[in-house]
Amino acid sequence: MTGEDPRRLARAYLLRVAEPPAPALAAFVAEHGALAAAKLVREADCPPKVRDETRARHDVILVEHDFAKATAAGARLVTPEDSEWPAWPLLSLSVAGDRGVAGMAPPLALWVRGPARLDKAVEAAVAIVGARAATGYGEHTAAEFAYGLASRGVPVFSGSAYGIDGAAHRGALASEGITVAVLGCGLDAGYPAGHVALQHRIAARGAVISEYPPGTTPARHRFLVRNRLIAALTEGTVVVEAGLRSGARNTAATAGALGKVVMAVPGQLGSAMSAGCHELIREAHATLVTSVADVIDATGKFGLARPEEARPTRRTDGLEPSAMRVHEALVAKGGKSAEALATESGVPLARVRAVLPALEMDGLAERCESGWRRAA
Amino acid sequence: MTGEDPRRLARAYLLRVAEPPAPALAAFVAEHGALAAAKLVREADCPPKVRDETRARHDVILVEHDFAKATAAGARLVTPEDSEWPAWPLLSLSVAGDRGVAGMAPPLALWVRGPARLDKAVEAAVAIVGARAATGYGEHTAAEFAYGLASRGVPVFSGSAYGIDGAAHRGALASEGITVAVLGCGLDAGYPAGHVALQHRIAARGAVISEYPPGTTPARHRFLVRNRLIAALTEGTVVVEAGLRSGARNTAATAGALGKVVMAVPGQLGSAMSAGCHELIREAHATLVTSVADVIDATGKFGLARPEEARPTRRTDGLEPSAMRVHEALVAKGGKSAEALATESGVPLARVRAVLPALEMDGLAERCESGWRRAA
Repeated sequence: MTGEDPRRLARAYLLRVAEPPAPALAAFVAEHGALAAAKLVREADCPPKVRDETRARHDVILVEHDFAKATAAGARLVTPEDSEWPAWPLLSLSVAGDRGVAGMAPPLALWVRGPARLDKAVEAAVAIVGARAATGYGEHTAAEFAYGLASRGVPVFSGSAYGIDGAAHRGALASEGITVAVLGCGLDAGYPAGHVALQHRIAARGAVISEYPPGTTPARHRFLVRNRLIAALTEGTVVVEAGLRSGARNTAATAGALGKVVMAVPGQLGSAMSAGCHELIREAHATLVTSVADVIDATGKFGLARPEEARPTRRTDGLEPSAMRVHEALVAKGGKSAEALATESGVPLARVRAVLPALEMDGLAERCESGWRRAA
Repeated sequence: MTGEDPRRLARAYLLRVAEPPAPALAAFVAEHGALAAAKLVREADCPPKVRDETRARHDVILVEHDFAKATAAGARLVTPEDSEWPAWPLLSLSVAGDRGVAGMAPPLALWVRGPARLDKAVEAAVAIVGARAATGYGEHTAAEFAYGLASRGVPVFSGSAYGIDGAAHRGALASEGITVAVLGCGLDAGYPAGHVALQHRIAARGAVISEYPPGTTPARHRFLVRNRLIAALTEGTVVVEAGLRSGARNTAATAGALGKVVMAVPGQLGSAMSAGCHELIREAHATLVTSVADVIDATGKFGLARPEEARPTRRTDGLEPSAMRVHEALVAKGGKSAEALATESGVPLARVRAVLPALEMDGLAERCESGWRRAA
């Protein structure tokens, strides 16, 4: 009925048969291959842990329906058998899962809408995440960071939620760079409703991706599960604003568990939306970042030079301590003798006599009738 | 002419004869005692390094003048021979000096105005420092922190400058706690002019202290030298606001070199006055603090319980993952069968049947004609 490769049909079935993350199923698929694993699961001929993960849905046959809906939504299925599969970053999930970190199984495939090749889109990518109830400061910062990163060729990943996520996607789009939205529901869920148009714009240049089959409704536990993909597919995660309880902090914790760089943006003390960021920084779970340059420094993988920051300087900056002390003892009006300057500065007279001409040459001191004074 | 103890006269002379910090002189005094050291310095009968430090002023005899001016200003001299000498915290300066940190000599004595005993005033004290050109946010934060600390019995040290320093002193005074101003000029210098009245208020309850003899004019290098005393006399230093170049950052660096706790307050990215704090935090020179409780935690020496912070909670917080998933699959309007819930949540049917009554008991689910729905 459908022209899809049987292995792709098997992957689509496997995506639907278990609620992600499904570590036992992932291991089972890795062992047997997608085709054989799908057959065994459908026949309930699999180990108890795999049965636990798949029992509730193993007889649900919606695969052709899934492909039809995906095609209608302009989406394709990307599987580990495809050359664009982002195998390398997703390996961090397998490694963490093997280390015993709960829920860290890799996705069995991904539904993708948009022209970006996944293997390219994850190269040196950065996640920008944060609170839905963001402040204007937070949204401004997210957009600025995303703009700056995307315009330097760094793909910006986020979760397409209201608040920080949306601002990050918009900032990246404004730079005409690549941005990727990772959803916690089906690509066709139209969620959140106010971001349907934004997702269209993202899919026009970058990608909107999900491991959930078409039609899957959004749910809080799915956002948390989705967060592991945002963390895994990027080099680092920037939390722009987060309350003390926040999905963004969950993404940050996952990124940390996966060995990725976790960054957070500070804000004013009174802002509840910065409290989560401050806690991440204080407890050393996140590096404080204040600029795109900081993000580039912290992830350290982009081969981009950190922009030079202007630092205020003073004319007396290069002076060694005794010259500084003599200079401080000079006044603008009314000269002082070298002896008086020695007494006042505590610098030995011979040294004062050596320092004064040097200060004069630097334009910091000048001779006058009554001795030496500070140059105007 | 004066009834002062000869050793105290010697200490006053030693304070005047060298511009602090004077590490060679400090070591010389430690070796010979103040009386003998003063005599040898006056006769220029001392090692070359001590001569270098004292040559410019060794014949200046102003000691009686100093005591007269100090008495007129309501000040007294506190020396290492006095029981209130804060020997223990100042030891950090000797240790750092011995380790080769430049400029870390202890003071040879201190001029003190105010009723506070120095040994008591330094107990578990905290320094609050920052930019003179502070913002309203910074001054508010400094005052709030100082108020909170001083009202818990933590003495608050600062430098009596405009901006953050002044706000910190005022906040501590408002709590009727102890605050100490450490000056980079003579106690009678009346500097800064706008804080003369503030210094009077500080001296009425706490202390205004300086190692500089009466009449010593303020100078930038003296503020930097003074900063080592603020750092040494306290358990930790909180930088509330600081530009990228700032004396407060110098105090923080000194506190770090002395093994003290360095803390910094975050602010918004656009504020130049928070840039120095952010850099301290980013480079791990300072711990981010957002509250008095954080300061107490970071210094960890006050024997004070950290105030409990309220954390937002949800009714579903205690649920284990499968119960959470079943709960997410429930809807408020229109019931669902256990079978439908199993399919939707991916939780095995037997488990769904066990979870639903538990959710009902928690008031999170309720039975209805068509199955189960989310409780109102």
